[in-house]
Parts: sequence; structure tokens; C-alpha cells
Amino acid sequence: MNFADLVAKNRSYRRFDQQWEISPETLRELVGLARLTPSGRNMQSLRFFLSREPLLNEMIFSCLGWAGYLKDWPGPEPGERPSAYIVLVHDTSFPGGYFCDDGIVLQTLLLGAVERGLGGCILGSVKKDALRAILSLSERYEILYVLALGKPVEEVRIEPMEGGDIRYWRDGQGVHHVPKRDVDELIIS
Amino acid sequence: MNFADLVAKNRSYRRFDQQWEISPETLRELVGLARLTPSGRNMQSLRFFLSREPLLNEMIFSCLGWAGYLKDWPGPEPGERPSAYIVLVHDTSFPGGYFCDDGIVLQTLLLGAVERGLGGCILGSVKKDALRAILSLSERYEILYVLALGKPVEEVRIEPMEGGDIRYWRDGQGVHHVPKRDVDELIIS
Repeated sequence: MNFADLVAKNRSYRRFDQQWEISPETLRELVGLARLTPSGRNMQSLRFFLSREPLLNEMIFSCLGWAGYLKDWPGPEPGERPSAYIVLVHDTSFPGGYFCDDGIVLQTLLLGAVERGLGGCILGSVKKDALRAILSLSERYEILYVLALGKPVEEVRIEPMEGGDIRYWRDGQGVHHVPKRDVDELIIS
Repeated sequence: MNFADLVAKNRSYRRFDQQWEISPETLRELVGLARLTPSGRNMQSLRFFLSREPLLNEMIFSCLGWAGYLKDWPGPEPGERPSAYIVLVHDTSFPGGYFCDDGIVLQTLLLGAVERGLGGCILGSVKKDALRAILSLSERYEILYVLALGKPVEEVRIEPMEGGDIRYWRDGQGVHHVPKRDVDELIIS
């Protein structure tokens, strides 16, 4: 798959075939990709907590908020939940911040997942105190994002943005539509 | 090129064949890739200032700090400077922040460049007030990073990290070496 196709296929998927198992090797390979990414001052201070066990997955799920613009949808039902999570944390024992390493590694993890026939969603709405307790995470680690991963069972379509309305929507057939700004709006020179 | 090879080939390059021209179409294609990336709350509030004209490039260059760990190297000499820049800014007229969109789009731009035989470096050491004046940028735009792009003329090698020393170095043959942490150090579960 060429890179443009990979980027286009990497949508934010929120419904999955929960029976689909993601192996420990696959998660480790994804972290291996993240390892090779640019890092501010080469500090490499982000860390990855991996979960693929159903019970732990359910506990992580209980800490997550899904799809803010779909007001009537509380998130994926049992059977359509992620098969794995990667919790991205910052090791605050390193000096200075992590610059934009968070987005760099998350996009890399997602693109690596898509190449493997998987997909996911970056979740920023996270009950961090509850999640810290569930994972028995040291205070040294600041929770940044949770990356949900699985075998997508939904279709997501890019749409031209109309009138500046950024809200995605789901149609009667369950297809998820995401408005994106035109390239001309993004370039300011 | 498979994705793992693309990620491995995407090193932070700081010396280029300055004669190599990057077309306006190529820069526009790269922004077209960034357009399709995940965005926090789908806000898409980042914008891209493109430069490929030699005179403007030189003015942008004057605002940049290069390679903090190479104390005796002030940055690329004439002839080895970038052919183009993408200045990443945040349009602060949109409510809320930009989450990790910065890293997401920068890594996507870089990977797209590498697929095209180019390469680049994310620069966070930027004289932002001077750059704002040079670009006649409205106060509405917050400068985040400058992405330098060109045809790399240096070799960059990944090395195992020894004793936690994160500093990259350049050897007598001009090869740039970058220590990266082992996957086992990155995984905390």
C-alpha cells in the first residue's frame, strides 16, 4: 500500500470485531515502529502500557469517553469493543517536556496498525485517576492518551466540510462521516 | 516501500542538496496528506506556511537553531541547506487547543517526504518573533515548529543507547549516529 492510501485508510475507528485477537508480537512490533520516530532533543521519554487481556480491556474501557459529537452514542457495545489498548504515558523523571512526540508516536502506531489490517482511535477523554489506579501506574508516569486498537467493523468516509461545521455524524446505515477542511484552507502562504 | 522501511528511513536529516528543487505540487501533496490525519475534536486548527523560494528560505534559515548536541556545528552550510520549509502554526481563533495534532501532521509530512526521496527535520528551536515578522504572520497564528525539507546528503544511523546517553554524534566520516532506547525500555506493562 502506498503511503497516501495508508493515510487515507487510517480513519478514527470506534467499532471493532472484539473477537479478533491482536497478538503480543503485533503490539510489540508497533512499539518497535514508534521507537524509530523523531523525538524532541532525542529524549524518548514516552512509554507504552500494553493491554490485550479481555478483563483488563474492560477495565480500561470503563475510563474512556467516546465520540463527543455523537450525543446519543455512549461508545461501542460489548462485541464491538477494542481488542487491545496502548496507553501512552510520559515519564516525568526526564527533564523538560516531550515536545510533539505524543502525536508522532500515536500516528505511527495507527499507520502501522492499518498496514496490518487493524485500525484504531486516539482517545483524549480519559478518567486518568481511575485509569492510573487500574494500571497501578507510578506517579512518575503522566497519562497522555489511550490508543484503542482492533479490527474495524465500521465504514468511515471523509466528506468536504460545509460552512465550517467540524462535527462528524453517523447516517442511518451506520456509516460514519467526517468533514475535513480543503487543502486551500490549510495553506496560508 | 513497506511502512516499517519508511519509518526506518525517516531520520532527522540536516544536510541537503540545496540545488534540488521541491515543486509547489509536492508541498501541496504533503499538506494533502496532513489534511487526512486524525485531529482532536476534529477541529483541524493547524495551518501550513510553505516556502521554497531561495530568498525566503534564507530568511527562515536565519531564525533556526540546529542540532543542539553538535556544539561545534552551527547548522548546514550554503549549498547544504533545505530546499523548502513548512512552518506549522496554530490558528488560535479556534476554541480549545490542538491536542497532539502537531506531532501527527509533522510525522505524516515527513513520511510523505521520505516516500518521495526527500527527508527533513522538525525544528523546535525557532526565533518566533523574528520569523513572524519575516512571514508577516498575523498574531492569530501561533508558530509551533518549522519543518525543514530537502534531498538528504548525509547518512544517519540508529545505534543502541549506551548508559542512557541520548546525545547523537557525528563521526569523522560525517555519518550521523542517533542512539535509540530498546523496545523493552519503552514498554512498561
